[in-house]
Amino acid sequence: MNHSDASSTDLVLADGSKLPKVGLGFWKIPGDQCDQVVSTAIDLGYRHFDCACDYGNEAEIGAAMSKQFSGGSIGRDELWVTSKLWNTYHRREHVRLAVEKTLRDLQLDYLDLYHIHFPISLEFVPFEDRYPPAWFFDPDAESPAMKPVQVPIRETWAAMEELVDAGLVRHIGICNFGVSLIRDLISDCRIRPSVLQVELHPYLTQNHLVRYAQSENIAVTAFSPLGAKSYQPLGMAEASDSVLDNPVVQHIAEETGRSTAQVVLRWGVQRGTAVIPKSQQAAHLADNLNLFDFELTESQMESISGLDQHRRFNDPAVFCEAAFNTYYPIFD
Amino acid sequence: MNHSDASSTDLVLADGSKLPKVGLGFWKIPGDQCDQVVSTAIDLGYRHFDCACDYGNEAEIGAAMSKQFSGGSIGRDELWVTSKLWNTYHRREHVRLAVEKTLRDLQLDYLDLYHIHFPISLEFVPFEDRYPPAWFFDPDAESPAMKPVQVPIRETWAAMEELVDAGLVRHIGICNFGVSLIRDLISDCRIRPSVLQVELHPYLTQNHLVRYAQSENIAVTAFSPLGAKSYQPLGMAEASDSVLDNPVVQHIAEETGRSTAQVVLRWGVQRGTAVIPKSQQAAHLADNLNLFDFELTESQMESISGLDQHRRFNDPAVFCEAAFNTYYPIFD
Repeated sequence: MNHSDASSTDLVLADGSKLPKVGLGFWKIPGDQCDQVVSTAIDLGYRHFDCACDYGNEAEIGAAMSKQFSGGSIGRDELWVTSKLWNTYHRREHVRLAVEKTLRDLQLDYLDLYHIHFPISLEFVPFEDRYPPAWFFDPDAESPAMKPVQVPIRETWAAMEELVDAGLVRHIGICNFGVSLIRDLISDCRIRPSVLQVELHPYLTQNHLVRYAQSENIAVTAFSPLGAKSYQPLGMAEASDSVLDNPVVQHIAEETGRSTAQVVLRWGVQRGTAVIPKSQQAAHLADNLNLFDFELTESQMESISGLDQHRRFNDPAVFCEAAFNTYYPIFD
Repeated sequence: MNHSDASSTDLVLADGSKLPKVGLGFWKIPGDQCDQVVSTAIDLGYRHFDCACDYGNEAEIGAAMSKQFSGGSIGRDELWVTSKLWNTYHRREHVRLAVEKTLRDLQLDYLDLYHIHFPISLEFVPFEDRYPPAWFFDPDAESPAMKPVQVPIRETWAAMEELVDAGLVRHIGICNFGVSLIRDLISDCRIRPSVLQVELHPYLTQNHLVRYAQSENIAVTAFSPLGAKSYQPLGMAEASDSVLDNPVVQHIAEETGRSTAQVVLRWGVQRGTAVIPKSQQAAHLADNLNLFDFELTESQMESISGLDQHRRFNDPAVFCEAAFNTYYPIFD
C-alpha cells in the first residue's frame, strides 16, 4: 500500500483503486443540512463520502449528490461513496435488500465500498416497520432491548461477495473487526475485504490492528479521527477526553502553525490511514482537507502516538447496556 | 453456572459435569519432575490436571498417572484431564491424529477436555520430524520463522466436534479467544465449547470476556492466575510486574492470614473462574489447593479487581516477533 508518499492524497488499495485519504463522515449530520454540506464539500474538493444506513440521512445525501451530478460540478466516477450494512440485515436474504435500499436512497447505481458496520447481528426489521431500524428491536416495548440473532460472519460475507459479483458494489469491507476475526474471515473468503474501518485517534492508536491490516494489504480508515469530539454531545465522553486540548497536540500545532485538528488528522494520514472527520462548517471542512502541504517530523509523530490511552469511545459493551439494556461486548 | 457457592470446589459446566476449580498446570514442569509432582498432587487432593502437547511432558505425565491408577490411589473417573491441540494440527485431517498422539502419551482412553490452544494455524509438522513441534517451522533454517497457514476456525472446530462423537474427548474448548471470535464460533457450531481458557490475574481481569463467556454458559479457566511469576524466568516479565508483591494484595493477605498466592487464587475462584497454578513444591501445591475455607469480602474482591492494568504477559503479538521472527497478533 502506497502510504509513504506524504503528499499523495489517495491510499492505493489492493486492486489499484484509489481511496481519497480524507473523507467526509456523515454520522450525525442532520438531514436538512446535507444539501449544504454536500455542496460545500464538493466545492472544497472532497471526493470521499462516508455514509451508512444507520446514520438516517442517506436519502438527503442522495438528493444532494444527484443535484451535484446533474449540475455537472462532479461526475459519479470522481466521487468515492461508502455505505454500511446495518446489524439487522446480516442474514444472506437481507444483505442484497439492504444495499438496494441504500442505493435507492443515495440515488446511485453502485457503491465504491460497502462495509459490514459491526460484527453484531440483530433480528430483521422490515423497512416498512422502521428505517433505519437502529438498535432496539421494539422501541415501544415496556423494557426495550436489542434482539441478537446468530448469523455466522461467513454467511453475511458470502452475501457481500455476491454484491460485488452483481456489480452493486466495487469493494467490500468490515468495520469494528479485530485481528483474529479478520484472519478467520480471510482464511476462506472468496473476495477479500479491501478496507477496515475502526475507531482510531491519538488516545486509541491500535498499532497492532493497523499494522496487521496493512500487512494483509487491507487499507485502514479511521473513524472518529479527532477522538472525543463526536461523543461529548452524546454523553459518551467528557470535555477532558478531548485530544485537541492535549498540550502535546497544542504544542505541535504551534510548531507547525496548523490547527490542532489538522495536526491530529495529519498524524492519521501520515501513519497510512484514511480519515473521515465530520463537520458542517465550511471553515472546518476546508481545514480538515488541507493536510498535504506539510509533514510532521518523526519525533512529532512519535509524541502523538505516545498519547495512546487505549481509550475507546464507541464501545457496544458500554453503550448497548447503558442505552439499549443489552450486554453485547465485541472488542474484549 | 454454579459459581456463587463459595465453599464448592467444582464449577458446574453446561452439561452438568463438574470441573474442579483448582487444577494443576503442567506448563514448564520438567519431564523428570512429573512423576513426583503427579504423585504429590494426587495425595494432596488435586483432581484436575491441565496438560498440552506443547508443554512437552505428556508422556511423563502419562507414565506418572498410569502408576497412580494401577496403584489404586485414584480412579480415572476421579481425575479431570485437559489437553490442547497445538497450532500445527488445525487442519481437519490432523486434529484426530493429534489427539490420538496425546492420548497415547497420557496413556488414557479419553480426555475430559480438549482445547484449541491458540487461534493460530501453522504448517503441519509430522510427529517423526519433531514433537512437540513448537513455533518454528524449521528451527535449523538460516532465519527461523513460524509458517502461518490459512485454516478457518470452523474447519478445526468441526474436527474437534468429531472427537466428541468418537468418544475420544468428553468436552471441547477454546483458549485465547476473544468475545467476537467466540460469538462467531457458537453462531453455527454443532457442539458448543464447554470451557474458555485465557490469561487472567489481578493485572489482567478481562471483566467483559469473563462475563460474556459466563453469560453464554461457557466456563472460564484462568491460566497464569498468579500473574507475572511464570514469565519472569522467560524474560517476559519484570520482578516489578509481580502481583504477589502488590501492597493491596499483601494487605489482604495480612487481613485474612493467608499467603498472597492464596489471596490471588481465591479472588480467581470467587469471581467464578477455575484456576490452574503451576508448582513443583509440595508446600505451594498444598497452599494453592487450600482456598475453600475462607472468603474474601466484597470490598476485598473489589480492591483486587481494581488492580487491573490490562497487563498481558502471554501475547503472541510480542513474543512471536521477538522469539520467532514472525508478526502474529491475536488479541488486538
